[in-house]
This record gives sequence, C-alpha cells and structure tokens, in this order.
Amino acid sequence: MVFDLSERAQATLDRVRQIVDQEIIPLEAPFNRAMKNPDRGWQLMPEIEALKQRCRDEGLWNLFLPVEPYGAGFTNTEYAHMAEAMGRSHLAPEVFNCNAPDTGNMEVLVHYGSEAQQKRWLKPLLNGEIRSAFCMTEPDVASSDATNMQATATLDGDEVVLNGRKWWSTGIGHPNCELLIFMGLTDPDAPRHQQHSMVLVPKNHPGVTVERLLPVFGSLHEPYGHGEVSFTDVRLPRDAIVAGPGRGFEIAQGRLGPGRIHHAMRAIGAAERTLQLMIERGLSRTAFGKPLIKLGGNLERVADHRMAINQARLLCLHTATLIDRYGIRKAYSEVSQIKIVAANVLQRVADDAIQLFGGAGVSDDLPLADLWANGRVLRLADGPDEVHRATIAKQELKRYEKR
Amino acid sequence: MVFDLSERAQATLDRVRQIVDQEIIPLEAPFNRAMKNPDRGWQLMPEIEALKQRCRDEGLWNLFLPVEPYGAGFTNTEYAHMAEAMGRSHLAPEVFNCNAPDTGNMEVLVHYGSEAQQKRWLKPLLNGEIRSAFCMTEPDVASSDATNMQATATLDGDEVVLNGRKWWSTGIGHPNCELLIFMGLTDPDAPRHQQHSMVLVPKNHPGVTVERLLPVFGSLHEPYGHGEVSFTDVRLPRDAIVAGPGRGFEIAQGRLGPGRIHHAMRAIGAAERTLQLMIERGLSRTAFGKPLIKLGGNLERVADHRMAINQARLLCLHTATLIDRYGIRKAYSEVSQIKIVAANVLQRVADDAIQLFGGAGVSDDLPLADLWANGRVLRLADGPDEVHRATIAKQELKRYEKR
Amino acid sequence: MVFDLSERAQATLDRVRQIVDQEIIPLEAPFNRAMKNPDRGWQLMPEIEALKQRCRDEGLWNLFLPVEPYGAGFTNTEYAHMAEAMGRSHLAPEVFNCNAPDTGNMEVLVHYGSEAQQKRWLKPLLNGEIRSAFCMTEPDVASSDATNMQATATLDGDEVVLNGRKWWSTGIGHPNCELLIFMGLTDPDAPRHQQHSMVLVPKNHPGVTVERLLPVFGSLHEPYGHGEVSFTDVRLPRDAIVAGPGRGFEIAQGRLGPGRIHHAMRAIGAAERTLQLMIERGLSRTAFGKPLIKLGGNLERVADHRMAINQARLLCLHTATLIDRYGIRKAYSEVSQIKIVAANVLQRVADDAIQLFGGAGVSDDLPLADLWANGRVLRLADGPDEVHRATIAKQELKRYEKR
Amino acid sequence: MVFDLSERAQATLDRVRQIVDQEIIPLEAPFNRAMKNPDRGWQLMPEIEALKQRCRDEGLWNLFLPVEPYGAGFTNTEYAHMAEAMGRSHLAPEVFNCNAPDTGNMEVLVHYGSEAQQKRWLKPLLNGEIRSAFCMTEPDVASSDATNMQATATLDGDEVVLNGRKWWSTGIGHPNCELLIFMGLTDPDAPRHQQHSMVLVPKNHPGVTVERLLPVFGSLHEPYGHGEVSFTDVRLPRDAIVAGPGRGFEIAQGRLGPGRIHHAMRAIGAAERTLQLMIERGLSRTAFGKPLIKLGGNLERVADHRMAINQARLLCLHTATLIDRYGIRKAYSEVSQIKIVAANVLQRVADDAIQLFGGAGVSDDLPLADLWANGRVLRLADGPDEVHRATIAKQELKRYEKR
Repeated sequence: MVFDLSERAQATLDRVRQIVDQEIIPLEAPFNRAMKNPDRGWQLMPEIEALKQRCRDEGLWNLFLPVEPYGAGFTNTEYAHMAEAMGRSHLAPEVFNCNAPDTGNMEVLVHYGSEAQQKRWLKPLLNGEIRSAFCMTEPDVASSDATNMQATATLDGDEVVLNGRKWWSTGIGHPNCELLIFMGLTDPDAPRHQQHSMVLVPKNHPGVTVERLLPVFGSLHEPYGHGEVSFTDVRLPRDAIVAGPGRGFEIAQGRLGPGRIHHAMRAIGAAERTLQLMIERGLSRTAFGKPLIKLGGNLERVADHRMAINQARLLCLHTATLIDRYGIRKAYSEVSQIKIVAANVLQRVADDAIQLFGGAGVSDDLPLADLWANGRVLRLADGPDEVHRATIAKQELKRYEKR
Repeated sequence: MVFDLSERAQATLDRVRQIVDQEIIPLEAPFNRAMKNPDRGWQLMPEIEALKQRCRDEGLWNLFLPVEPYGAGFTNTEYAHMAEAMGRSHLAPEVFNCNAPDTGNMEVLVHYGSEAQQKRWLKPLLNGEIRSAFCMTEPDVASSDATNMQATATLDGDEVVLNGRKWWSTGIGHPNCELLIFMGLTDPDAPRHQQHSMVLVPKNHPGVTVERLLPVFGSLHEPYGHGEVSFTDVRLPRDAIVAGPGRGFEIAQGRLGPGRIHHAMRAIGAAERTLQLMIERGLSRTAFGKPLIKLGGNLERVADHRMAINQARLLCLHTATLIDRYGIRKAYSEVSQIKIVAANVLQRVADDAIQLFGGAGVSDDLPLADLWANGRVLRLADGPDEVHRATIAKQELKRYEKR
Repeated sequence: MVFDLSERAQATLDRVRQIVDQEIIPLEAPFNRAMKNPDRGWQLMPEIEALKQRCRDEGLWNLFLPVEPYGAGFTNTEYAHMAEAMGRSHLAPEVFNCNAPDTGNMEVLVHYGSEAQQKRWLKPLLNGEIRSAFCMTEPDVASSDATNMQATATLDGDEVVLNGRKWWSTGIGHPNCELLIFMGLTDPDAPRHQQHSMVLVPKNHPGVTVERLLPVFGSLHEPYGHGEVSFTDVRLPRDAIVAGPGRGFEIAQGRLGPGRIHHAMRAIGAAERTLQLMIERGLSRTAFGKPLIKLGGNLERVADHRMAINQARLLCLHTATLIDRYGIRKAYSEVSQIKIVAANVLQRVADDAIQLFGGAGVSDDLPLADLWANGRVLRLADGPDEVHRATIAKQELKRYEKR
Repeated sequence: MVFDLSERAQATLDRVRQIVDQEIIPLEAPFNRAMKNPDRGWQLMPEIEALKQRCRDEGLWNLFLPVEPYGAGFTNTEYAHMAEAMGRSHLAPEVFNCNAPDTGNMEVLVHYGSEAQQKRWLKPLLNGEIRSAFCMTEPDVASSDATNMQATATLDGDEVVLNGRKWWSTGIGHPNCELLIFMGLTDPDAPRHQQHSMVLVPKNHPGVTVERLLPVFGSLHEPYGHGEVSFTDVRLPRDAIVAGPGRGFEIAQGRLGPGRIHHAMRAIGAAERTLQLMIERGLSRTAFGKPLIKLGGNLERVADHRMAINQARLLCLHTATLIDRYGIRKAYSEVSQIKIVAANVLQRVADDAIQLFGGAGVSDDLPLADLWANGRVLRLADGPDEVHRATIAKQELKRYEKR
C-alpha cells in the first residue's frame, strides 16, 4: 500500500483487523438472534460489552480522534485504514468506541464544547459510558437543502427553547443514549449560514419524545435505532448551546469531513467482506457442472468490483491525506466524491453478491441484505448523491468560470 | 394501445383498475399496521375478505385462467393488462383470486390434475377458500440448476415417500394454506428431465414441518410468508402424484410461461406506481428553490424510466400474444426476456424513487422499500437473471449454429 | 410479430429483405473500395443505379410515402418494417428511393408544396432523378435549441434574401443534389414559432457555397456528404418559400415524426445486422479453447442486446401505430422515446461487436465502425438525446401538474 | 497529490506540462491540416522536429526510461505524472521521445538486447533518429489468446526464417521507421510459454511487405500508421533473435507492465483535456436560456467524470508505485486493472463531450472524435478488457482457492 503507516498505526491496524475477524464477526449471528428475540432486543450483549472493555484496556479506543489526549492521535489517513477494518462488521465500530454518530458528536464537543459541556458529555462519551444521537434531518422538508430546516431553537432570556420534529436520529434507541445534539433555527434574519444553533439536550428532558423508531428496509438496527423525535417547548439553559447561537452550520460542516471518510472507509471494508462472501459462495456451489463463480459473466463482475473497490479506497485515502495536510477546505470536492463513490461501490457489490446467493441473500441468514441496505442508505444519508454531485461540479466549474 | 382488447376485457380491466386505485390502495396502510401488530399479524383482514367476496360476486375472479369454465376465459394478452393493474398494490392479486403461487398451482391442476385431485384441491382454490404453496427451491444447492434438486419422492408400492428440505415456499404462512405442491427426485436413472415428480401434499400431513418463515429484506410478507419446510418420510398414496411419476419437469415448465407474464406485468404495474410516487413527491417538495424533480438529472431519470417501462410493457404484451397464438414453445426466449426486463425496470425506478424520497423511502411509511424489494427478489426468483440470459443467448446462437 | 401486416405490405417487405440481403449487402465492399479510390469517389456506382431502376420497375419505390399516388401508400407501421430491412445496409435506402433527407424533403413538398414547387422539385425527387439536402443546423449556436437559429430569410419585396451559415447539410455532396431546403429567420417580432421560413434553394444558385464537407468519425459518407454551406445574399423569388413566410417550424415539426420512425427502424435493422456479425464472428474464432462468444460475459451481452433490440423495435412499431391512428400530436413523447432508444441500442451493440472483433472492428474491413458511428451520430442528430429526454419528462409531468 | 515527486521530477513535470499546453497543443490544428493534405501527408512536420530537438537539448528526453544512462532515470511513479501531461496531445509523446511503440521496443533492447543489437538499434532509437514497430497481432486468429499466434520464426542453421502475416503494427508508416520487432513460433514442442521468439527485422529487409495501412475509425494516424505486414521467407542471421530462441513471451510480458502505465496515464491526460473541452464548451454556449453545462444532467456527468478520472489516476499511480517497489510480479492484477479503467474513463468522457458539442464533436474540427477513438481502441489493444478482467478475477480467486 502506497499510503504508508507509522509503526504504531500499522500495529494498531493489524490488531483491529484481527479482533474484527476473529472475535467480532463470530458474534454477529448470536447478536442477530438476540436482537430478534422479542424478550431480548434493545439490550446490550454481554460478550460485546466485555470485548469493548478489553479493547479499551488494550488502548484500542477512540482511534478515530486525532486530537490527543482525547483520542488515540492517529491521522485521518491512518484511522481510515482502521475504519475499513471496522467496516467489515456492523458490530465492530462500537467495540472500539468509534461508532457514528458518537464519533461526530465527540468531535463537536472536542472542538467546540465548553469546559462544562466537555465535562458533562464528552468525558462519558469518550469512556463509552453513554451514547448520543444527532437530531438534524426533518420529516416535513427536503433536508438535502439544509436551509429548509424548520425546527427552532429560540432564545428566551437565559434559556433556549426547542420546538420541532426530527427523524433519522440514529442511536436514540440505544439503552445508554443520554445526549441528543439538536439543530434548529435561532435567527431567521441572520446571514444564511448563521441562523441555526446546535444545542445539547439530555434525552430525558421534558418535551423530548421519541415518537417511534424507523425501520430501514425492515431492520430497526437494534440496539441503536433511528428515531423520529418531537421537541415541544424543550427549555434549556442558554449554555446548552454549542459555541454560541448561530454557529450550527459552521459546526455541522466541520463535523462532516472526517465523518465522511469514516463512513466511506467502513463502506469499503463492508464491500471487501461482501466480495469475499460472494467469491466463497461462488466457489463452493455448483450449477451446470461448474462453480457458480465461473458461470456467465460472474468473473467479470468480480473483476469489476475489485477495480471499483481499489479505486474507491485510494480516493478515500487520498482525501484523508488532503485533510491531514491541508484541512477540509482543500478537500470539499474530494469529500463529496468519496461520499458518493464508496456507498455506490458497496451497493453494487452487495447487489451482485445477493444475486449469486439467490434466496439466501435476501433473507437474514447472511449479512448481505444488511450490507446492501447499508450501502443504499449511505447514498442518501448526510446529503444524497445528487447534492454531492452538484458540489463536485460546482468546484469543477469554478476553475473555468474564474478566468 | 396497440394491443386491442375485446369489449369484455376492456370493461373488466377498467373495473379492476378502479377497484385497485379506489378501494385497495387505501387499505394498504391499515393492512400494514395490522400486520405489524404482534397480536394481530398472520390473520386475514376483514375488509379485504369482504372486498374479495364482492369481486367474486361481480365476476372479477380467476381472471388469470384462460380455460373456461375454471377461469374467466381471457387470453394471456388480455389478462396481462389486468395483471399490470393488480401490480399497483401488493394486496390486489388476492382480491381477484389471482395471486401467486395459487395461480400457477391452479393451472397445474387444471392441465394435469386428475378428477379426484381437481375435486379435492382445485375447486376450493378456485373458490378462494384455501391457499397453497409450491415447494421446489432447496437451501442446500444452487436451485438455478434444477437438476441439482436433492429432495426425493420415492415410490414405495402404492405410496410415494417424500424426504428433503425446501425453502422459499411462498404462501405457506397464510392461515388458509392447506396444499403444498412438492417436487422431488423419483428415478435418478431416468432421462434427465423425467426423473422428478410433483406431489400434492396436505400442509398438515405428518412429516411436514414449517421450520421457519424467511424474511425478505426484513419483511415476512404477512400473511403469506415464505417458509423453510422439512419433509421427513412424508408418506402419501401414489395418486397424490400429479400426472404420474417423472413428469415434474414437464409440468413445471408449462407452469412457468403464463406465470412469468403475470409476474412481469405486475412488476410493470408496480413500476408505474413507483414512478407516479416519485414524480408526485418531486413536484411537491422543494430544495434550492426548485421542485426536487427539476433538480440535476432527475427529469432525465423520469424520461429513462418512462422509456424503460413502456418498452418492458410492450415486450410482455408481445410475449403474451405469442403464447396466445403459438404456445409457449415459440416464446422461450421471450419469456426469459420479460422475466429479466420487468424485474430490473422495477428495481431501477424504485431505487431512484427512494433516492428522491430520502429517508422516508427506506422506511415503512411508504411502499417504496417493498416495491424495490419486490423488483430485487424477482431478479432471482424463478431462475436468476443470469440463467435466463443464458437461455436467451442459447436461442440466439441456435439460429447460427444450425447452419 | 404482433403488428400484423397487410398481404401487400408483407410481400413488399419480404422482397425488400431479399434484395437487401442478396443484392445490396454484396455490393458494400466494392462500393467502399470505389468511394475510397481518389479517382473514383463522389460518383455513383453503376450497379446500384441499375438496381435502383429495377426496384423502381418492380414498384419497390417511395415505400415511405403513405400518400398515394405520390408514394406506395403503406402505413407508417407497415413501412417501419421495411425501414428496418433497409437499415441492414447503408446502401439500401437509396435503392428504394427512401433515403434521408430526401424522404423528409419529399414529405414537406407533398404536404406543403405549391403546385409549381411540386412540379419543379417533387416530381424529380419522386423519380429519384435528383437528390436534395436540408439546411437547418448552424455551426455557431447550440442548434438543440432551434430558436437559437441565426440564419435569415428576409423578405424584400417580391423576393426573399437568405444569409447565414449552415452545416451538417447531408446529401449536399451527392452528384445529383440539386435542391436545398433552407430554414431561416424571417420575422423576429412574430410569435416564437412563427418567425422562421423554409425556402427552396437550387444548389447552384448564386451566393450558395459549399464551403467544405465534414467527416463523421473520419468518413465523408461519399457520395452523400455532409456540407458546411454559406448563404450570402441568396436572392430568390418569394414563391420559393414553402407554404408562406413564418411557417418553417410548423413544417419542420410535421417533417420529423415519420422521419424519426424511419431513422429508428433503420437503426434497429443496423443493430440486428451488427448482432448477427458479432455472433457469427464469436462462433467462428477461438481463444482459450472456446469460441469467443462463449467466453466470459459475452453470452450475457448477446442476451442483453436481444432484449434491447426487441424492446426498441416494439416501441417503434407502437409509435408508428399511434401516428397511423391518432396522428403525431398523440405521440410526441413516443417519438422522442424512439429517437433515443434506437440510437443507443445500435451504439451499444456496435460497441460490443467491435470489442469482439478486436482490431478488425475499428478498421474499414468491416461495417462495424460505420455502424457504430451511425448509432453515435443519431444520438445527437435531429436533437440530442438530452433534449428528447426533456420532452419526454415534460409530457410525463403534465399528467400530474394539471391536477 | 499524495504521490510526492522528487524536486527534479516535479521540475521536469512542470516543464513538460508547459511545453504541451503552450507549444504542442497549438501545433495540432496545423499538423492535422498538413496530414490531410494529400501532397503533404506522411511527412514530418518541421515545427515538431525543431521542438523535439529543443526538448532533447533541454534534457526532456527519454523520460520514460528509468534505467540510466539510457534514460532520464525517473521512477515509474514519477514518469506516470509526465505521461499524463503528454496524454493531453497526441503529438506530445514523440516530442519527448516517449511514444509507443518505440518506448516498449527500447525497453526490450535495454533489458534483453545484445551489445551489437543495442549498438545497431537502441542507440538511434534513444536518439530519436529512427522509429520502430512491433509486429505481434495477427489478422487471422483471435490475438487475445497469444498462444493462437501462427507466424513462424524457424531456426535454419545460422539463420532464422520468418513467415506469417501481422497487423496493427503501429508506427510502420513513419518515414523514419527502420526496425520491426517480430514475434513468431519457433518450437511448437517446447513448453507453452517458451515456444516463441522475438526477432529484430530491418523494415526494408527482403520478404517484408507493408500490405496496407489500416484506418482507425477513419483515421490513418499519419505519420505513424498501423500496418498490415506480410513476412515471406524473411531470412536473418540467428543473432537477430532477442535474448535467444524461445524467450519471446518472457520478453513480451516484461515489456507490458510499464507500457500499460504509460498508456493508462496518457489516457487520463486525454480524459482531463476532454473534460476541460466539455466544460469550456458547456459554459460558452447557451440553449433554453442557460449555459449548456447547466442543463439537465450535464453537471452530474461532469461530477461523474471527475470522480472517475481521479480514481483512475490514483489507481495508476498506485500501480506504478507497486512496480517501483516490488516489481511487476506483485502488480499483475493492478496492471490489468489500469488497462481497463483508464481506457473506459476516456471513452466515456469523450462520448459525453461529443454529445455536448453536437455535430462539431464528430467532425475533425476538434480532437474529440480522435480522443474518443483513442479510448475505444485502448479497450481492445494489448489485450481486450475481457482478457484483463479474466486476469483480475483469476488473481482474486487465487486468494480463496489456495486455502
């Protein structure tokens, strides 16, 4: 690999890979069974909690956070490799305290949180003691255009009052979820990107109601869950606002760059695992006198996925390096590019893998339907592909329009 | 439309369309709620049962069956139009007693059933009093190559003894399901396509166990269900075999032609509804100062789907006409073509519609995730796309190899 | 085929097919050699002229023209089948006096020409004695938006004066080309679609200069040629205007419907021939111990092309039938659909065929590079795909916006 | 860019870019006119010869050759960047003495040539005094399977006798072409990859006949040309064989790795130029009240091309680095990947650019038709995409089959 890692990063990466493949993946089946058990779902799994503790003890913890002493101090490029390894199993990120949206929420608190905010919320998050959710998307407007946001965070003396309805608040169903980060309109008369505020809301605060949990292609993603949440006259002291009123967009933007690398690299890890499953199945089953993988265009599809995955990975690592070297401002186009590319690569390989597995592929005997749904959802979460294509094209045209 | 309908067919079609749009689609939401209610699922919905009765009274019944007096006596081309109308809602086919796999099973019994078999099974199926399942696909082998089949239907004196494991036996969860049509190996020494038998099995017969119901992208498709079923020394009198031992493949082939037209036309109906949902949403929501549908390449996608749907429909109607005129033997390639084309058209338009709906599209607030899954599953059910591509290519090469 | 033909049409079709396959295709190689001979190009080929005469004598003449006594009196649907047959060879259309742009120009004269215009121009065109060109597209503006047109046709007393520059005037290099139909702006103050006039211009008229002949992917398409033509103070009597000033768009619109069916069906014929070449080559050459056609995904591609061609053909025939029954006004969307679909089908199959032929495919030993270029050019001639997608989407949205 | 260059490499790259954009691209139009002039074609262009001399004087020469003192001593990764810059104009590679097939032929002579061979052929090639061709592909067999080769290089005492027919011998039309490298069967009884020999043949040797020059989508690529060449009892001393009899495949394999990086990076340079042309045109022309580039899905296409080009470039640079570090043996899959990826990226962006330019795009007013043809031909030259997909898949399966 051209993107060389420091010795420490390489050792950490090797260990993460080992734990994912040898300890976490074998827990998937029992985990899924437990979650589907109506008497058992929405609880944590002791084996995973124990593994978390071991990883924490071993220092395999908060690997995503480049800022020491909060996190492990790896660069985005280094962590990107680890995120790929974690992407191989949907159970892996939490084991290393690296799961969304907690990662992004911790970054917000690291960079913008007051001392009091950090003490109350950041510390337990870093310790993996609590979980959090991010409440931005709304059901009643096209959230791809963030300025459509209707929820309000109105200043009222020493207080801020929240009203509105959010959905796709991921993680809100987790038994340990205690913090919601809410985004709402504070000052409609301010300049367009200074109208909104980000507010820290205890999950159990009066006026906060989790109306329901939303399924994603039939899965509730226990024990995280994606909530539809209403905020009705939720009153909080003004110092619950992160970094002061009107800075919501600024913070949200900063939150997204590394987060998109994480998502993208996890998607690539998921794509690699999917391709592996596809090939293993294709070699082990026979039809018309041949292993499935050697029938028709199947080998061409394997080659296409190999090329797509390799290219997507290089683009992500390149983008991570750009951010490490020059900051997010020099990588707007690239961050949008990986957002699109990685999700599509995963969706496509999962679609082909499902096809090769036949009925088994769409059932829950295998992680394929989930892997596919994961890729599919990434194409619309955090801004749909189309919005990112517009961003990329805009950057591209800039080079010529300036002239 | 070039494919002209008789006056009776046109009147029936108009009525079917009206019932689907005005009476059935409004029942979808309450139906879905009922099915998700753990105290309520897997039961029939009184409103739908009442509507069924009304349709039966009105003669909108067994429309798929060209053979009078069993069915309504429409040609495949005529019924194809009605199947499209029914495809608009997953609840519609049963309302008109036209749902798979009962339709195919009824056709088997019409064409190959003995008088006794018809009396016992066909009559209540035609009356909509019982439901049935078809047990062919197996979990342990690549069922795309039907000769892989491992289940056995062994002759033993006056009896036939069934052993093996089947899955994706659709409809087996339905409260009224009473009949299973089982396919198994009878004589491994017979010519390749005369080795298997089709056997009529009462669902509650000793040795038959529904091991579990399989989810499809998270949905159990209540109240039909897709079962994994074990057959352990299931003993039946020899006259439970349809048309005699060794004729399984012959019957299965005949069963598939019209069935694939039904599936394909329903997929086209589903695609039309999906496109409608996409456009309505795209016109009603706004981002960046424009209706979503007018942003970026969305209108190009609308045009692409319109072209794809129109072409797929014409191909299906053309195929139906070929079968009506010349029989299935003159339409092998075409039947495989529509199998592929219609499913892919549906999957693609549903994927784009989901993208335009954002999060709502992957939830169960809308039928989109189900519509997508419907298209996706059709790409692998009844033979995956790849097997059908091979059939088409084989027919194509025949023209040149003969020379 | 579902689209049944009259006995006369079927007999004509059979004869056209026979002549194309047995008499015209064998002339392709000598024709191409003659055209490439610098001492020989841009002349007519005696064998083709003789064949034309025979076809004329046999009544296989002006088959495209539904209006008797001018043409053969076939419906658009009937002629569509013949156009497909002619599409198998680029030499075929002229043999039956059915080649663009003469066909469109004859239709203009049939429907809009004065008696004098018909006598002077239509008669010799119908007789195949002269050829013509159509001068609409301009080099300096995006002609996809016809209102961009800059050339002028200014009224000056009893005269009309033409100025401007046109290109892609196909047929202008033909030794027999005598008529140009020119379109230009007459009255910029008139309503948007009544500003332009269509004018009949003798090719040798003073002020008309063929500046050069344009290659299409390296081919000048001898002996037709695509000209860039300047018009400098070209003065003509006012009665050279077709149907009077300001009716240019109206006439151009009417000209396009049937013309697009012809183009599309010829493209389908070309696609069929290409697929045939691909399969024949793939069966006759061997690599890695197998006929090429059976390697990798080649058979899947054959199947994909079969499905695409069949669907495109049905869409064209359906569109032709719509026009026959209800007129072009009920088929705007469909006419745009076939414009896109047929060209893309041809381009794709030609691309795959080239790939299978390797180097031979891009050379001029085979018609493949030309067939490909034919498909490619059709995607942008007569309005690029994108403009037609916009038309289709507009029609689609109309259904919902009305409500 | 993550792939950091040495200071010398960066300075060279900057200079190459400057010369390409400021001096070479402006020569394209006069060059094309000269080549099309029947009295002028197939001669060298004085301006280019002068520029070559200047580049040589400046040390911008043989940049592709990592081996000093023969070449400039850049790594493959470093040269890859320069190859991209040269890919912007088809005239550029020769200016820096870096054009195929001379580059590959020089590498063969550097690595396998005897002292005498190097003296006679390598020196003038390195000096740019002569040009050469590579004669491997044959017209009568599927050359994608190299073992199909039918031409013979038979040992006869102290001599080797060549017989057979080759085609697509690029460069053979160049006025300075003096050397052909011929590959033929020497010992059919040897192990499969030791049967063929590579022989150095003076172009004017008795028995060598350039039968004709082959057009590529209508272009003869003057002054290089692609020849069909017959070898009839061509007798040469045995020491004309490179590295001894039976080593042809071994040498051919070694020749391909870096060559494919060059081809791929030039394709990427060509793709960048094409995208630039597309955007500039799209910004400068207007239809329906908007710059073309902002209509419909055009901006999405720009974004798609940006993502594709960036990913392809990273994959090429990554592959070059693999070869630099570990040799070609560790990069078989990657070399095949870039072979496919880069050509397809170029073909696709050129296709979209042509669409945006309309008629101008398919003419020879612009380099677009050639850029497209360049990408198209790369998909089948040096092994078609399908063969490379098979290689990639084979490497992929190895990981699992070993187990």
